Amino acid sequence: MKPFKMASREYRESDTIIEIKTAAQPVIIGEGYCTIIAGPCAVECRESYIEMAKLLQAAGAHILRGGLFKPRTSPYSFKGLGSPGIDIIREARRVTGLPVATEIMDVRDLDVLYETTDILQVGSRNMQNFSLLQEMGKLDKPVLLKRGLSATIEEWLLAAEYILNGGNDKVILCERGIRTFETYTRNTVDIGAVPLIKHLSHLPIMVDPSHATGKWYMVAPVARAAIAAGADGIMVEVHQDPDKALSDGKQSLTPENFRKTIKELEDLAQLGKKQFGGFSNGKSN
Amino acid sequence: MKPFKMASREYRESDTIIEIKTAAQPVIIGEGYCTIIAGPCAVECRESYIEMAKLLQAAGAHILRGGLFKPRTSPYSFKGLGSPGIDIIREARRVTGLPVATEIMDVRDLDVLYETTDILQVGSRNMQNFSLLQEMGKLDKPVLLKRGLSATIEEWLLAAEYILNGGNDKVILCERGIRTFETYTRNTVDIGAVPLIKHLSHLPIMVDPSHATGKWYMVAPVARAAIAAGADGIMVEVHQDPDKALSDGKQSLTPENFRKTIKELEDLAQLGKKQFGGFSNGKSN
Amino acid sequence: MKPFKMASREYRESDTIIEIKTAAQPVIIGEGYCTIIAGPCAVECRESYIEMAKLLQAAGAHILRGGLFKPRTSPYSFKGLGSPGIDIIREARRVTGLPVATEIMDVRDLDVLYETTDILQVGSRNMQNFSLLQEMGKLDKPVLLKRGLSATIEEWLLAAEYILNGGNDKVILCERGIRTFETYTRNTVDIGAVPLIKHLSHLPIMVDPSHATGKWYMVAPVARAAIAAGADGIMVEVHQDPDKALSDGKQSLTPENFRKTIKELEDLAQLGKKQFGGFSNGKSN
Amino acid sequence: MKPFKMASREYRESDTIIEIKTAAQPVIIGEGYCTIIAGPCAVECRESYIEMAKLLQAAGAHILRGGLFKPRTSPYSFKGLGSPGIDIIREARRVTGLPVATEIMDVRDLDVLYETTDILQVGSRNMQNFSLLQEMGKLDKPVLLKRGLSATIEEWLLAAEYILNGGNDKVILCERGIRTFETYTRNTVDIGAVPLIKHLSHLPIMVDPSHATGKWYMVAPVARAAIAAGADGIMVEVHQDPDKALSDGKQSLTPENFRKTIKELEDLAQLGKKQFGGFSNGKSN
Repeated sequence: MKPFKMASREYRESDTIIEIKTAAQPVIIGEGYCTIIAGPCAVECRESYIEMAKLLQAAGAHILRGGLFKPRTSPYSFKGLGSPGIDIIREARRVTGLPVATEIMDVRDLDVLYETTDILQVGSRNMQNFSLLQEMGKLDKPVLLKRGLSATIEEWLLAAEYILNGGNDKVILCERGIRTFETYTRNTVDIGAVPLIKHLSHLPIMVDPSHATGKWYMVAPVARAAIAAGADGIMVEVHQDPDKALSDGKQSLTPENFRKTIKELEDLAQLGKKQFGGFSNGKSN
Repeated sequence: MKPFKMASREYRESDTIIEIKTAAQPVIIGEGYCTIIAGPCAVECRESYIEMAKLLQAAGAHILRGGLFKPRTSPYSFKGLGSPGIDIIREARRVTGLPVATEIMDVRDLDVLYETTDILQVGSRNMQNFSLLQEMGKLDKPVLLKRGLSATIEEWLLAAEYILNGGNDKVILCERGIRTFETYTRNTVDIGAVPLIKHLSHLPIMVDPSHATGKWYMVAPVARAAIAAGADGIMVEVHQDPDKALSDGKQSLTPENFRKTIKELEDLAQLGKKQFGGFSNGKSN
Repeated sequence: MKPFKMASREYRESDTIIEIKTAAQPVIIGEGYCTIIAGPCAVECRESYIEMAKLLQAAGAHILRGGLFKPRTSPYSFKGLGSPGIDIIREARRVTGLPVATEIMDVRDLDVLYETTDILQVGSRNMQNFSLLQEMGKLDKPVLLKRGLSATIEEWLLAAEYILNGGNDKVILCERGIRTFETYTRNTVDIGAVPLIKHLSHLPIMVDPSHATGKWYMVAPVARAAIAAGADGIMVEVHQDPDKALSDGKQSLTPENFRKTIKELEDLAQLGKKQFGGFSNGKSN
Repeated sequence: MKPFKMASREYRESDTIIEIKTAAQPVIIGEGYCTIIAGPCAVECRESYIEMAKLLQAAGAHILRGGLFKPRTSPYSFKGLGSPGIDIIREARRVTGLPVATEIMDVRDLDVLYETTDILQVGSRNMQNFSLLQEMGKLDKPVLLKRGLSATIEEWLLAAEYILNGGNDKVILCERGIRTFETYTRNTVDIGAVPLIKHLSHLPIMVDPSHATGKWYMVAPVARAAIAAGADGIMVEVHQDPDKALSDGKQSLTPENFRKTIKELEDLAQLGKKQFGGFSNGKSN
């Protein structure tokens, strides 16, 4: 017997399809769609973020990343703008019309983040922060749950179960690489997690090829691999000037590489009969 | 250059010695001492916990474990008594005169736990819960920081750095096994972490042989190994009736096995010229 | 400085392209091609192997697998037919006109295998059997070098270096999954190894999605991921009746699933501008 | 049901005790004894090896290490003296009266090594070289089987099973550290393997703290931990001038540190009621 229930295929046969309302047509995440979340690792300043948001929209991204609170291994690293950055995110949303995904690290930030963002992201290091998961379960907003850096598939689905069991059925899983002995790369993408999650669960699964590899020249190949394996989308880091990024520069695509990559993913989505862009065609959750 | 500063040997040459006041003589954790923290995985009911506390005191334990909030992989597992258990811990402390160590999972529980416990434990899954670490940095109470289940030594010391950098210099590290490919055991004890931490840092290091192995018959050998390798103490699970424990029964020692083990550790401490019992002889932090 | 030399991009800028002669047009493995090696895990009996060989040829496989010596974790498992199976391989080659790849485990089998097979396979467990690697370096025959189950990319390239340095430049790397903590799958495919090897080395890289996953329903998605990530081909297990296979049944495709998968890979190869089938168009090593 | 049979406790209840004849009293490896194998990683030249052998004998080592064939990750590293070193080993044996353990990498070296050495060592990288294991099974000489760098306990016991099943019951297991994500140390010693092997099997188990840690200052603490956990002995690297060693210098003890360590191990052996020195007191296999 599997220890997860509500997250299992047995509990719900049809795929969970998550709809995010926007001023224009809704953005969809789930089986049959291919949805791109893109942005810099962290919001660094108003001007560059708004510029980037416009670039990403023009290039075809469907959802913006906008990190304000950054979990950092060292207390001496840049930890994000925090609450003062919220107005920047609001502006980016208004200017582009795109929804925004933002990481939440502390239950005490929930009020302010709930109002501002369309997808709440629970990061890898908080995948088993059960207090946070329980709060996520009380919301009616999509939660993107990144896999813990050495979490088994079962533990990951049990973390999702905390949210589902709390009453929120809008959970998006995101594979972001696991920790192995390999030292050339930051993490090791578990590409098999894509078909395995599709087999065990009805929840959508995306892949983050940026954190997973830590090297920009691996991002496009791994993004293509994810879509070819059946992932429902990609979460990717883009930065105008990766060498000057305050965090994760080495793994960020330039806008030019992003445009090239998104074209390749569009072709793969078509081959896999996935609707690229994740825009609604009338199906709903 | 090492990324951690205040946690390093270079920053502080002499070993950090932590003193916990009690009604009788203070209990000490640090180089030159061998200190035993023991108790059931979770406080399950008043009667059995008080009985166990007395048994452990009689057997020679120096600090009690008393888990009220238990991080559990599945939302369907027993999660501890929560706040209602606090009176039980208070009673155990009063009856035995021993200090108590309790896990904190949520910053919102801090007020109530601060008053009740002598050591706040940050569990493995929260080792990189940076919000929680920052709160720990504001306290004047010892924090026992368990190693994350796939944390590198460097990440672990950086987590300690968050607490030290916040202003709290009473950090105790606790190796509790790391995740590997091995499936016979729950985790793999990294015994080399003991001499490595002693080499890199001035902080005390203890070992939890119960979670690390998941099998009661491995607990005593691994506890002996820890002391022989130079660890400053052991954190161990004991249960009157392991088969009926609501959590972690398989890895709990019976009171009888605990008495036998504590005798072996006492002999090893003597051989290693460590003061067993962790009682003060006038040295202080 | 990288410790491998002859295997590096710096040593040889242009991609290594390996040509395998057949009665008809040569089969090619290398950048710009997409080549499929298929067959049962082990040759079990003459009749079924010849039948399978014909099925695979008809379905579009370019090279046959034909295991005679099987490394088995337990001494009590089926270890392959050994030398008596050589006539079966010869017959399959003659009947289909396809080249054959066979694993070599012991230098003492080299004489008999050298005559019979077109590609010598060094298995995962022998990736650091340096005596065997040195013998492979003396040959003028392609060697397919599987990655050790916990080998780093660097160790893998150094194993290739043993063969190159010995004088044989026909080395094909094959990612077959690494060992991690995950227990749902047999191994974890390191899909990032594909772009990383392409970045670091000029050698061709293939992926074995069968051993890597251990589950037949993951084979096609992972095979597609490999080609989309830029791999030069796939090595896959097919069995007429997977439930009755003497080894690795659970991860074998049925002939019908193989036909479906090969069609998907052909589409991906076309999208990636790779010549499917690995047949020569005049380019050579 | 466990997949290993002859290696299991169920098959043989009493501990396997292995006796190595010498000109003087026999050296014993097994439960109730604590036996020290020591020497440089590789025999480098006649003069220094003979000098070292005498030093080790005087310090109390019971068995000499004498590596002639060294498995090296890179083809450009020193691979040992090979057969020309055999006379040096013979001389060391004659001069000290101590038995010698030597690694075998290739079945073709068996004849020459069989005559020269008292214990044949199968290294970590060859733990699943099944051809080599099968040859070891045909001998009447002790085989020291190192654990593969990512081998499970079960796979290790199955490798032992190959030797036992072939007819040789003189198998000594040696834990030498497994590969994990940790980068400060060369490997991670699985200290829990000691009580686990004692629980599952009747075979002796030793620990190699040198390869396991890769740092000389961790060697003594881990060696003490091994004996305290119940290991039957230690295999340790000693070098007159570690900084000038052709291999593994960083993890080698100086003769002075070795003398200090051996004294500590003697005390621990006494505490654990193990006969230090591994000399026979009349018991036999």
